[in-house]
Amino acid sequence: MTDAPGRLHAAIAELATFNDDVAAGGITREIYTPTYAAALRRVVEWMGEAGLETRLDAVGNLFGRWAGTDAGAPVVLTGSHVDTTLNAGAYDGVLGVLGAIEAVHALRAAGFVPRRSIELVAWAGEEPRFGTGCVGSRAAAGELSRADLDRLRGRDGVTMAGALRSAGFDPDRVEDARIDPATVHALVELHIEQGIVLETGGEPIGVVGAIAAPHDFRLTFRGAATHAGATPMDLRRDALVGAAEAVVAVERIARASSSGTTVGTVGVVRARPGAINVVPGTVELDVDVRDSDAAAREQVVATIVADARAIAAERGLELELAEIVEDVPVESDPAVVAAAQEAAAELGLTARTMISGAYHDAMIMGRRVPVGMIFVPSRGGVSHHPDEYTSPEELDRGVAVLAGTLARLSGQ
Amino acid sequence: MTDAPGRLHAAIAELATFNDDVAAGGITREIYTPTYAAALRRVVEWMGEAGLETRLDAVGNLFGRWAGTDAGAPVVLTGSHVDTTLNAGAYDGVLGVLGAIEAVHALRAAGFVPRRSIELVAWAGEEPRFGTGCVGSRAAAGELSRADLDRLRGRDGVTMAGALRSAGFDPDRVEDARIDPATVHALVELHIEQGIVLETGGEPIGVVGAIAAPHDFRLTFRGAATHAGATPMDLRRDALVGAAEAVVAVERIARASSSGTTVGTVGVVRARPGAINVVPGTVELDVDVRDSDAAAREQVVATIVADARAIAAERGLELELAEIVEDVPVESDPAVVAAAQEAAAELGLTARTMISGAYHDAMIMGRRVPVGMIFVPSRGGVSHHPDEYTSPEELDRGVAVLAGTLARLSGQ
Repeated sequence: MTDAPGRLHAAIAELATFNDDVAAGGITREIYTPTYAAALRRVVEWMGEAGLETRLDAVGNLFGRWAGTDAGAPVVLTGSHVDTTLNAGAYDGVLGVLGAIEAVHALRAAGFVPRRSIELVAWAGEEPRFGTGCVGSRAAAGELSRADLDRLRGRDGVTMAGALRSAGFDPDRVEDARIDPATVHALVELHIEQGIVLETGGEPIGVVGAIAAPHDFRLTFRGAATHAGATPMDLRRDALVGAAEAVVAVERIARASSSGTTVGTVGVVRARPGAINVVPGTVELDVDVRDSDAAAREQVVATIVADARAIAAERGLELELAEIVEDVPVESDPAVVAAAQEAAAELGLTARTMISGAYHDAMIMGRRVPVGMIFVPSRGGVSHHPDEYTSPEELDRGVAVLAGTLARLSGQ
Repeated sequence: MTDAPGRLHAAIAELATFNDDVAAGGITREIYTPTYAAALRRVVEWMGEAGLETRLDAVGNLFGRWAGTDAGAPVVLTGSHVDTTLNAGAYDGVLGVLGAIEAVHALRAAGFVPRRSIELVAWAGEEPRFGTGCVGSRAAAGELSRADLDRLRGRDGVTMAGALRSAGFDPDRVEDARIDPATVHALVELHIEQGIVLETGGEPIGVVGAIAAPHDFRLTFRGAATHAGATPMDLRRDALVGAAEAVVAVERIARASSSGTTVGTVGVVRARPGAINVVPGTVELDVDVRDSDAAAREQVVATIVADARAIAAERGLELELAEIVEDVPVESDPAVVAAAQEAAAELGLTARTMISGAYHDAMIMGRRVPVGMIFVPSRGGVSHHPDEYTSPEELDRGVAVLAGTLARLSGQ
């Protein structure tokens, strides 16, 4: 399907060299850093080589436009992101941007002329440098206010507003990034699965029927930080043992969810003071619960919180609950799903209709415009890790299905 | 009993100003730092004011000698340490050194003349800057080799050998610090309890019958660090849930110990990669198990390790066990206990015979020479924390009992 075999793979490899922590073994390219800006300039060059007209919006979302014959028609958006989390892999997000450029090359080589304009996008900050992910697509969806930019703060204490300023943007212009939903016909995002469902089933393509959304919150257990040797077992208020019971409960409650698709994870635990000879006095757990079924997810969250309160009461601990983010699951648009399924069928590729457990920029925009996603397999389900891998053949199949999907959507 | 009311309390307050992290609210004065050296110089001055002849040994243990009439008789040692852990309180260790100086003042004021020489000591590095505590008393006990000095390494990567050199000591002379046990008649250490046993019982003095010793080890659980959204519950190998079950097991197994005095604590937990959207792939638990009954303690350790192995096997996790330290509990010497009990009785003070759950330099020396300890209450059992507190009256009672104990032991 592609007119230049190897170009996509070379581009993915080249983008991986824009890396702030080579020593760690993976890729670290966080949003609004000089390294990110340099990587984005290279993407601009590649978009230019594909004949796209590029522009950067007020929060750093990069667009590349292939003008259609019907200049006034709502456009077809496609893209993902090229920022990474810490010590990450080469494919997450990157495939959806560089693969879309490759799809444009392929469509041009095949002589295709779009009726609707096709706009490629590299969303800014899909990875949660500031605690919340998808900041670029949130701004485009009109869900990010000026006040949010001061509130959102990274590990290094830098606010999103400060990071924008350092990168040459004006935080006061955040609302300029909003995209009028009436100007968008559909959005489709190509992405690696980041799970092992396709690999387990031996299927080359996934068409996402719904995107699960996270409800993230922090549970803080407070007891008494006393001497580990001098405090008898019956005189302790050990915050870590209570928190450990809650970690076990998160797993048990998620497994018992009525939907059968809920996942619950404690990814972060911080025990203070954190010395081997001191009973932990304060423990924070960051909990992530996801499902495409919002009601089932909220039932799980409520049960976890009730369980945590009961554990705390039983152990004489204080419990504090802080919300981090609560996103709304999104159903894919039937027309986008159908276009992707037809494109796969035309290529003779089996396509599994599946849920996306990971969230994506498409979930944010999906609240406003018709969306869909195309998945390719992830070896071992590994993602957010240097070992993240999808073979060149699998990548090419995904690009081919994306090209067919764009052709269908832009012709409608 | 004291000849200068307030001197001890002023000295404790002044020593607290030798502090490398004032901003944290507590006291940070780690061994072999310039701040520690400055504090020790002040202690040398105070020892001089009490008429003691001071000397520093090869690893920085500070001695202050009050020569007895029988110059050749084995000496009575008393002291503790003036280094602190991070963001600590003002009394842990400090009381045993400055309180001993005060006891000398009191004995001199009372016209006492010792037969055996009384030697005060400020042991170097009781707190575990290099992972293992009591390095000064271990050197004095002949339990620290030149090779250990290269092996022991702090959070900052500095070895104990390097730290010694920076502080002006020669690591190759470590064996010079050894004290011949035949030269020591007895050792007595005054210390805050660091627990709430005395406070709960309303008793002013504790006489330690045995010092519990820790067996510390690290359990590392390894699973798969996969995407928290994209990995269904039944396809996970979550290292944190397994580790959490082990944390709960440590408490349950310690509570069920046959001795009734075992304590088991997980003070440190490290979950990696530590992101809210990634299932933890590796979790380390640092476990501390203590008892004055070594057999009961080892039974608890064996049961914890067996439980952790079963948890790991059940969950498809790998488990790694690494020893950190395994110390031997020490019984106090009956003659030292009797001297302290008599001293308390003479002052009309109720003295509880109790176990020390915390370990002390006296535990290390107690393997070689007759030892005993005197405890005063700790408000709320708080220690290793800025809120550590013992009232001036409680401190004075402890000093008075120490003086009476020293008088008895040095007269024998």
